[in-house]
Order: sequence, then C-alpha cells, then structure tokens
Amino acid sequence: VLTYFCHNISSFMQTLRQISQQLFEYANSQNIVKAPTQLYTPIDYILQLGGKRLRPALVLMANNLFQDNIQPALPAAFALELFHNFTLIHDDIMDNAPLRRGMPTVHEKFSMNTGILSGDAMLILAYDYLMRVSEDTDTTNKILRIFNRCAIEVCEGQQYDIDFEQRNDVTIPEYITMITLKTSVLLAAALEIGAIIGKSSESDAKNLYEFGKNIGIAFQLQDDLLDTFGNPAKFGKKVGGDIIQNKKTYLYLKCLENASEQQRNELLQWYSVTQTTEHEASKISAVKQIFLDCDILNHTKAIQEYYYQIALQHFEALTVPSERKETLLTFANELFERDI
Amino acid sequence: VLTYFCHNISSFMQTLRQISQQLFEYANSQNIVKAPTQLYTPIDYILQLGGKRLRPALVLMANNLFQDNIQPALPAAFALELFHNFTLIHDDIMDNAPLRRGMPTVHEKFSMNTGILSGDAMLILAYDYLMRVSEDTDTTNKILRIFNRCAIEVCEGQQYDIDFEQRNDVTIPEYITMITLKTSVLLAAALEIGAIIGKSSESDAKNLYEFGKNIGIAFQLQDDLLDTFGNPAKFGKKVGGDIIQNKKTYLYLKCLENASEQQRNELLQWYSVTQTTEHEASKISAVKQIFLDCDILNHTKAIQEYYYQIALQHFEALTVPSERKETLLTFANELFERDI
Repeated sequence: VLTYFCHNISSFMQTLRQISQQLFEYANSQNIVKAPTQLYTPIDYILQLGGKRLRPALVLMANNLFQDNIQPALPAAFALELFHNFTLIHDDIMDNAPLRRGMPTVHEKFSMNTGILSGDAMLILAYDYLMRVSEDTDTTNKILRIFNRCAIEVCEGQQYDIDFEQRNDVTIPEYITMITLKTSVLLAAALEIGAIIGKSSESDAKNLYEFGKNIGIAFQLQDDLLDTFGNPAKFGKKVGGDIIQNKKTYLYLKCLENASEQQRNELLQWYSVTQTTEHEASKISAVKQIFLDCDILNHTKAIQEYYYQIALQHFEALTVPSERKETLLTFANELFERDI
Repeated sequence: VLTYFCHNISSFMQTLRQISQQLFEYANSQNIVKAPTQLYTPIDYILQLGGKRLRPALVLMANNLFQDNIQPALPAAFALELFHNFTLIHDDIMDNAPLRRGMPTVHEKFSMNTGILSGDAMLILAYDYLMRVSEDTDTTNKILRIFNRCAIEVCEGQQYDIDFEQRNDVTIPEYITMITLKTSVLLAAALEIGAIIGKSSESDAKNLYEFGKNIGIAFQLQDDLLDTFGNPAKFGKKVGGDIIQNKKTYLYLKCLENASEQQRNELLQWYSVTQTTEHEASKISAVKQIFLDCDILNHTKAIQEYYYQIALQHFEALTVPSERKETLLTFANELFERDI
C-alpha cells in the first residue's frame, strides 16, 4: 500500500516544465488588453518580455506540495507576476532605466505617464486576480493579508534602497533588511500563498515563508557576487554594474569593515567617482582587486551559505513526503548553480 | 411607541459635523509616519492638505443610514481618502501640476520618485485599511470587490481623459463615460461600501451606488460649469482654466453640436491655440461668449438636472426612514449650492 501511495504521489507531483506550461496557458488565456487599450497594452507588453517567472512558479510549486491539481492556484500565480511587473515598471521610471530584458522599458516605449498609470492598474489587477482564487472568503482573506503586508514591505525596501544611495553610514544589517524587503518577502509570500491555497497547515505555510525569505536573501547575495565576479558570457547584465553605480552592496559594506586603512581609503576614493564611461574598466578592476584582497568572495559565500542553511532547516521542517519536495528543492538549488 | 422610535432614530442620526469630527479623530490617531520616513512623510503631507473629505464623509453618511454607531466604518472611510489622494499624487505628476489646494504638490515638494512610490504605498494602504473593517470575511470580500472594480475604473477614466486630449472626435456619451469612471464611481463605491458595512440590503446598497454615480456625474458637470461661469471669488481654482487648456468638457462638446458653421469654426480656432499667457483673457471671454450664444449654460443645467433626478429616484427608493436620510440629502444638495 505504501509503495502504491508513494507512486501515486509522485505521478501527481509536477515537474517545473509541467508547471510552467500551465502558467503559460493560463496567462495567455487572460486577454488582458481591452479598452482603453493605451492602459492595457503596456501591461501585455511587459508580461510578454519574459523573464524567469520565478514568483508564479514558486506559488505553483508550493501549492503542488499539498495539492495534485494546481489549477486553483493559477490566478494567484498570475497575480504575483502582475505585482512583480508593476514594481519593475515603476522602479524603471525611478531608475531612469532604458532597457529591461534587452527591450525598451515601458516608460521608454510608451511614455512616463503610461508607465505610472499602467503600473497602477497592474497593482489593482493583482488584487483582482488574488480575489479570483477561492470562493471561500476565509482563504481569500488569508491570502490578501499575506499579500498586503508583502506589498507594503516591497515599497519600504525600494525606499531604503533609494535612501542608501545618499547615505554613507549604511550597516550590513540595514543592507540585509533592505534586500529582504525589496526582494525576499515577495518570494516568501509567493510560497506561503501557494501553500494556503493548498490548504496546508499554518506551520507548513510559515515554514515555506521563512524558506522563501532566507533563500531570497541568499539569492540576492548571489546576485551581488555575480554582478562583480560573474562570467560575462553567462550573466545577463553587464558585469561590474554595481561598482560603476557605487552600489552599497554586501561586498562593498563587508569590504569597508575588513579593509586596512589604505584599502579603505582607496575604496572610498573609487566610490566617490560618479558615473563616467571613461575610467569604467580601470575602476571595475581596481575595486575587484580590493574586494579579493579583503577576501570578500569567501565572506560573501559564507553569509550566503548561512542564509541557505536557515532556508533548508525550514524546508526540512515541512510535513510533506520528501518525494513531493523534489521539484521545489531542485529549483532552489538550480538558482545557485550560476557560475561565479 | 412610534414617536419614541423616531425620536430615538434622529438622536442617533449624526450631523455632518459629528461625522467629520469622528473622521478627523480617527485619521489623527493613525500615526501614518514610521520608518522609512521618506516613504510615509509625503502620505501624511497630502492627507494634511485638507480638501472636502467628500469620499470618507459619503462612506460614513451611508453607513449611518443603517447603523447608529459609525465607528466600524471609519477604517473604510480612511481607506477611500487614501485611495483618492493616491490618485491625486499620481495625476499631479502626469499633469505636471505644481500646486494642489494652494500648496506644492507631492512631486514638487519632495521628488517625482517619491510621488510615484509614496502613491503606490497609499494604494496598498487603502487595501490594508479596508481589510481592518470587519472580522467577517464575507463582508470584507464584498467591500474589496466593490473597491477593486472602482479602482480599476478610475484608472480607465484617467486613461480616457489622457486619450481625449489627443482626439478631435470625442462624443458626448464618451465624455460622460469618462467622467463617470474618473470621478463618479468612487463616490458611488464610497456610498455602497458604507451601506455594506451597515449591513444594508443588497438593493439599498445598489441604490446608493446608483445615487452616488449619478450625483457624481451631475457634480462633475457642475464643476465644468463653474470652471467657465463660476464666481471667481467663490470658485477655488482659476475661472477659465478648462478653456485655456482646451479641455473637451461637456460645454465644449455640446457647443460644437449646437453651433452654427461660423461659431463652430471660431471655437475650433480658439481651441487650436496652445497655452500662452498672452491672450488668455481674450480667449476666455471669446469662448464664453460662443458658449452663451449657443445656450450652453442652459443645456448643461438641463443635463445636470437629468442626472440629479435619476440620483434622487435611487435615493427615494432606499428602504430607510426619511429622518435618517436628512444628513446625506442635505449634503448632496449643498454640493450644488455654489454660485454659477
């Protein structure tokens, strides 16, 4: 009986490919564009730009831990993709970014006003889709409470990120708080919402939230590492971008902490230069060398591992047969497989 | 017994002053500003700018039709004020407006990025406050569904308003749809939400929605009239602003319909002039004269009366003792008492 039971479970446990396929079909069936088309066309445009679809995949994988049929979670998965893309549109305006995924950003392709208004509409649509998930108003309420807290935290994270540009006394704990709010809580909420729709226990839902939050921090630290030490052929963005923009990443903050007086002054000197294309290459290589001399590569890997282990503890605490956990665990591990 | 009952009702029926006082106390008790303060300070700033507080007052007056104690409706009232002010912040960026209620707009006082992000946070906070209204998840769900539809319609209305600036074939029905979406549905939703919190019947809630929607259209037409024919001493904004901005208001669209060939050409000629301060006064007086010659003042009053009468029919259909209706009816009538 046990063998049959396990066999039964794994046959309903979906691979990432199967999950992505369902998401793709659902998104395509939504016919976002209607009158006034100037409002809805930009929403369709950014959704079509692609990307990893990380957040909806997390909703569905978390849901599939508890339910064989992930169909009921599809509107929530789509809602989180809408929300994430709303933040991208507004962040791109704030950053004055011309490109997103190699294509013109919404405000570049349409106009700034379009970017603001279509972004607003996407945020409202995210709520709309979350409300389509369940007839059960208790479930809807739970989902909305998780989403609401997360959404305001993402705004707070963005504000801290903006604030940090002007500050010279940012601490490492403050930086971790910022990336947690700006990036990790949305991954965490995606997983928790997927679990709630799957009628998980409260403790399983909370463990998935903590798993997502900590894996998100590790993931962002990985991104910081790749931005400086990544393989240019594999990294999607330009390597060294954070250094050119004087971004106060973990690498920079930890380096200030560990550096000798001389290294510290050199680093501060380089970071006082505002963006010019002239000395870009020499700035990047000089700062990289200071980071390496201060052993920042290993320090960052160590703290990344610290958050990854916390994530794993929460993952292991899930009261779900291990066969069901495979897809999500494989997915999480693959996120870290990019070369540094 | 009946006399006592009626006396009892009217003693619990609150005046606008009492309602405003409770709203004021609630809003002041909320301590919106917390870390990161750069995100929350602009929210507090715009809320402190004042204004008529029309939408929260409508929530509370509708609620008081059905319940003596309006305390449970206060978070919803505050939510609608948050939402309305979110639209003001983002609209002011889109319109490049320097002033709001005689004070610098949020993007002028802080920055455009602050305006975008603090606006986003206000929209999310509006949802947050709506979810604080009731422990009963069915009620919360009903409120959120009304709010969601309204919120997306307000975005659609704003988009139509932007679209109309570029179009020369806007029809009167299209204009009515635009002002309905941009202005009236929020007044309608405010009333319906207040009723739902008061546990009204479905039909009372719907009648209040229709009352609000139609009174909102009449109210916007009144605003169009005042913008051109208002008493400069009493009208808050500069009289003639719509004419200077070539706004395709009801006055303009109806005039095009009624004008002779010559009047029509004259009007189109004036409206082809883009904003210059030089000939402002002569443009305003010339256009006003064409409007008067085409009897637009009376046409506008007639259509305004048409929507006002529809509103009244829905108001009269409410299954509420007439004593309870006094505050709301007086309030609605006072909105129309401004001189033209």
